[in-house]
Amino acid sequence: MSEFRPPVADLTYALKHVVGYDDVAQLPGFEHADFDTVAEILDEVGTFMAELVAPTNRAGDLEGARLNPDGTVTTPTGFKEAYAAYVDAGWGSVPLPEEYGGGGFPRSIGLAIQELTTTANMAFALAPLLTQGAIEALLNYGSDEQKQAWLPKMVTGEWAGTMNLTEPHAGSDVGALTTKAVKRADGTYGITGQKIFITFGDHDLSEQIVHLVLARTPDAPAGTKGISCFIVPKYLVNEDGSLGERNGVHTVGVEHKMGIHGSPTCVLSYEDATGYLIGDENIGMRIMFVMMNSARLSVGMQGLAVSERAYQQSLDYARERIQGRTIGATEDSPIIDFPDVRRMLMTQKSYIAALRRMMLLNAAHVDRSTHHPDAATRARADEIVGLLTPICKAFGTDLGNELTSLALQIHGGMGFIEETGAAQHYRDVRIAAIYEGTNGIQAADLVGRKLPVRDGASALEFIASMRELDGELAAAGEEFASIRAQLRAQLDTLEQTTAWMLRTGASDPNAVLAGSSPYLRIWGLVVGGWLMAKSALAARGLEDDGIAEAQLPLARFYAEQLLPQAAGLIGAATAGSRDLFALDADALADAARREARV
Amino acid sequence: MSEFRPPVADLTYALKHVVGYDDVAQLPGFEHADFDTVAEILDEVGTFMAELVAPTNRAGDLEGARLNPDGTVTTPTGFKEAYAAYVDAGWGSVPLPEEYGGGGFPRSIGLAIQELTTTANMAFALAPLLTQGAIEALLNYGSDEQKQAWLPKMVTGEWAGTMNLTEPHAGSDVGALTTKAVKRADGTYGITGQKIFITFGDHDLSEQIVHLVLARTPDAPAGTKGISCFIVPKYLVNEDGSLGERNGVHTVGVEHKMGIHGSPTCVLSYEDATGYLIGDENIGMRIMFVMMNSARLSVGMQGLAVSERAYQQSLDYARERIQGRTIGATEDSPIIDFPDVRRMLMTQKSYIAALRRMMLLNAAHVDRSTHHPDAATRARADEIVGLLTPICKAFGTDLGNELTSLALQIHGGMGFIEETGAAQHYRDVRIAAIYEGTNGIQAADLVGRKLPVRDGASALEFIASMRELDGELAAAGEEFASIRAQLRAQLDTLEQTTAWMLRTGASDPNAVLAGSSPYLRIWGLVVGGWLMAKSALAARGLEDDGIAEAQLPLARFYAEQLLPQAAGLIGAATAGSRDLFALDADALADAARREARV
Repeated sequence: MSEFRPPVADLTYALKHVVGYDDVAQLPGFEHADFDTVAEILDEVGTFMAELVAPTNRAGDLEGARLNPDGTVTTPTGFKEAYAAYVDAGWGSVPLPEEYGGGGFPRSIGLAIQELTTTANMAFALAPLLTQGAIEALLNYGSDEQKQAWLPKMVTGEWAGTMNLTEPHAGSDVGALTTKAVKRADGTYGITGQKIFITFGDHDLSEQIVHLVLARTPDAPAGTKGISCFIVPKYLVNEDGSLGERNGVHTVGVEHKMGIHGSPTCVLSYEDATGYLIGDENIGMRIMFVMMNSARLSVGMQGLAVSERAYQQSLDYARERIQGRTIGATEDSPIIDFPDVRRMLMTQKSYIAALRRMMLLNAAHVDRSTHHPDAATRARADEIVGLLTPICKAFGTDLGNELTSLALQIHGGMGFIEETGAAQHYRDVRIAAIYEGTNGIQAADLVGRKLPVRDGASALEFIASMRELDGELAAAGEEFASIRAQLRAQLDTLEQTTAWMLRTGASDPNAVLAGSSPYLRIWGLVVGGWLMAKSALAARGLEDDGIAEAQLPLARFYAEQLLPQAAGLIGAATAGSRDLFALDADALADAARREARV
Repeated sequence: MSEFRPPVADLTYALKHVVGYDDVAQLPGFEHADFDTVAEILDEVGTFMAELVAPTNRAGDLEGARLNPDGTVTTPTGFKEAYAAYVDAGWGSVPLPEEYGGGGFPRSIGLAIQELTTTANMAFALAPLLTQGAIEALLNYGSDEQKQAWLPKMVTGEWAGTMNLTEPHAGSDVGALTTKAVKRADGTYGITGQKIFITFGDHDLSEQIVHLVLARTPDAPAGTKGISCFIVPKYLVNEDGSLGERNGVHTVGVEHKMGIHGSPTCVLSYEDATGYLIGDENIGMRIMFVMMNSARLSVGMQGLAVSERAYQQSLDYARERIQGRTIGATEDSPIIDFPDVRRMLMTQKSYIAALRRMMLLNAAHVDRSTHHPDAATRARADEIVGLLTPICKAFGTDLGNELTSLALQIHGGMGFIEETGAAQHYRDVRIAAIYEGTNGIQAADLVGRKLPVRDGASALEFIASMRELDGELAAAGEEFASIRAQLRAQLDTLEQTTAWMLRTGASDPNAVLAGSSPYLRIWGLVVGGWLMAKSALAARGLEDDGIAEAQLPLARFYAEQLLPQAAGLIGAATAGSRDLFALDADALADAARREARV
């Protein structure tokens, strides 16, 4: 197994030189989170993850989480110890409010910590990731009393959190859920129903699990407008804060999945479990959206993080594996010397760099949207977060699938053998394009909700802001000429397809939806190219630290070889829906064919 | 589990209307293989596979093949019975010479039968697939005596065959193998060494296994020029043809793989096993190339076949799964009605159709290359086979990964749960881009061996032949206008990148290798677009049989939405090798980064 090298230096480079972290650190409330402090923390986190979490990754895959006959869930060997150390170190609390025991650091730093955790062990990292989602919902919508009661131990990680949305017939269509919440005389609610696909729905890492559960009160309106959100703890909590008796929630199954075996994906049965309403009745979807936006960025990051781990492993293999001779070689060569293997490595590395910058940019705008003193700046940052989130989620996780596949491919036949470990990354990351809203739903969100903001002005202003780099690229001379040319060309592609979307949306929403996925990919490719160009420009004049010098070759490779793919997607983005619906379901199945042919 | 519908009608449509099967059936020796007879056989094969083989697919995945403590290998439940029925029915013998008990049908029909077998159960289908490879090597290079001794029972399938190339340090570089062959006084050879990754290297399906083994005689030249090929049976054969004692070959391991669990991938140990030289010493690579060319087409077909099965399952799911409402709908909709789900279905279906036509075209040229009375026609057909084989293998299996991923994605969260079966297809097909020469090796073969044929004239003539469709497309009117425009545009892309490759190859072979994979993909996209256009043109005037009517919408979708991606690859195909080698291995690893940053 290859040694895991936490990519701390690239994270700090991206923070400082690409997404403007120094500005973030100047925002009120973040004064203590200056770059040097942050760099030191990330270095410690990286070491921690490499030493204590990364070694649990294989056992997690091989053993998996399991449901015991007594209904308890056991996580794989090493998870419990690693989680205890994680709580001790306090890494989960770094980006959370000081008021509840957190470190009060920006979301961008929280995301960097999540990335390092996920790179070490994606399945393990889901426990704190879900907890953070639940914390954010409580922070935004919980009463003061609820915050005081639940947050402190969730912030430390002593208590874990979950999100309970899905039911067998309510997946993407959350509004179809049927779990019932009946108000009791004491103001609590009795929650009854079945939830599926609950990540870390039960486990042995923490003494308590705080479920946030979507349910429907008896007279609630149909659909998403009639959903309420409840705190449903695994154990009831006594007046003195100690844990009391078991609440009416039980684990009836743990799914057998293709990947992330270490993460228990649970079927939970609620039988008149005691729940505490968050906010008012029927605002549950609004609360879930708070959790989802944050979680969607985190899931996009998973695509990046698992790709980084897979990339490192494939790079190590490519350096060590001797096989055949390259042209002109006089002795056998490591396969890294073959051009096509290099292509696979460079494709991974430059996409990974672009994704890291994209995720951090999104997070930095989250920080501006919550902490900037100027309301207009906050509002604009919030718009950008809205625009970038579906792109980060879908582009990040689509690439997660593609890049872990390249890493596996570099291993040749060994990649298909489970002992090698390359296959695990490919299997693990596959869920990320599905959960937290499938990538198709992200694309629908982009064209249906984010593009119409201010009649398209929000998106167009963002595109215009990317164009502002052109002057600097022009001034940077010949070395940047191909980057400049390709970025201009593909910004044109983005602008042209965006104009088509805006023009078409009002009259033919199905046409816009039909092209939404390739359109989202154009966005991803272009934002990535822009950020890599920024990254390369920033590297000029910096002393090389093992990162700076690599930025220009990476940006050039991206611009010349990856970015042009955007133009190849114009057809698919703007073809409309006619072709998609030209065949009916029977024709798609060639239903008549066997009968008709004879 | 969704019911498997053998795609016989599309196979027969493609044979008759796209790849000119009626001409193949006119070749000397194929008179009995007229289209109606073939259609009837394929119909029977389809029914057989649906009823007897497809039901073994899940058990194959769940149980896997296993190595018993006594060194024998047991295949999963149902495999033995299905194989016995397969031998009884004689499907494997259909395309083999009548002289040895075969049906004497064309390779194109053999490939169609392989496709149907693979769609039913990829792991199972590998047993006859490898046997056929071994048969082809014997047919081409075996002595008459050897043919009489081994072929009849291999043709029926009573005896299975394998290919033994790979060793731990000799994968892509076959020439590095070290297995020894020492000539004995009786003319046989003693074979000693270890082989890995031997598909169906041992099993309980047949009473005998005939291994074709590459090994090196004591004084052989180094590298691929010193390799000889031997018949090494699992059991020695007595004079009377009955099986004698066990030969010195033993199974020391069965790999634990990500997919095709039902196919035992063996580590075989040869200890002075008796081997019979095929042909002369040191021509082993030539013999293996016979097997490999045929096997590469069959592996490309695997990408298609598993995609077909995954597609059918995702289509059934999309028709049944009710979730949310489409725009304007008054009640909940099946997800097939959502545009982005349609995109995923149409992408699968049109690529599958294109791949099927491409594989059959390749096989039809194999038939011309072996059976056409005119030597020049045979030679030209052989060139086309050489050109198309790496494209079929790499494009087919890359798409296998991508299309099974789309099928999984359509299932949403259910796709990630192993019980659903969608994940199996994604896992199974992943090996196909690796074995029989990784797809990188296919791309190197295309630019390094196939493109230089007659200084590029072979490839350019094929491109010119694709351009000949333009007149017919122009005459076909408005309905075909977008197909014509895109095909012209992307034939230009192909011609332009081919010209660059030919121009660059002599002076800078690394530059050509650097762009070889995206260049191969351009070929795949364009050949697919051309064949879909042919398919749509042929459908005019045909009575709709459930297939004909679908060809125009499929061809248009392909032309407008998939084919344009070729242009997006020009940059990557023609960028040269500078960017790929701009970073050294340490820089790729950011090796200095942790130290330097502090």
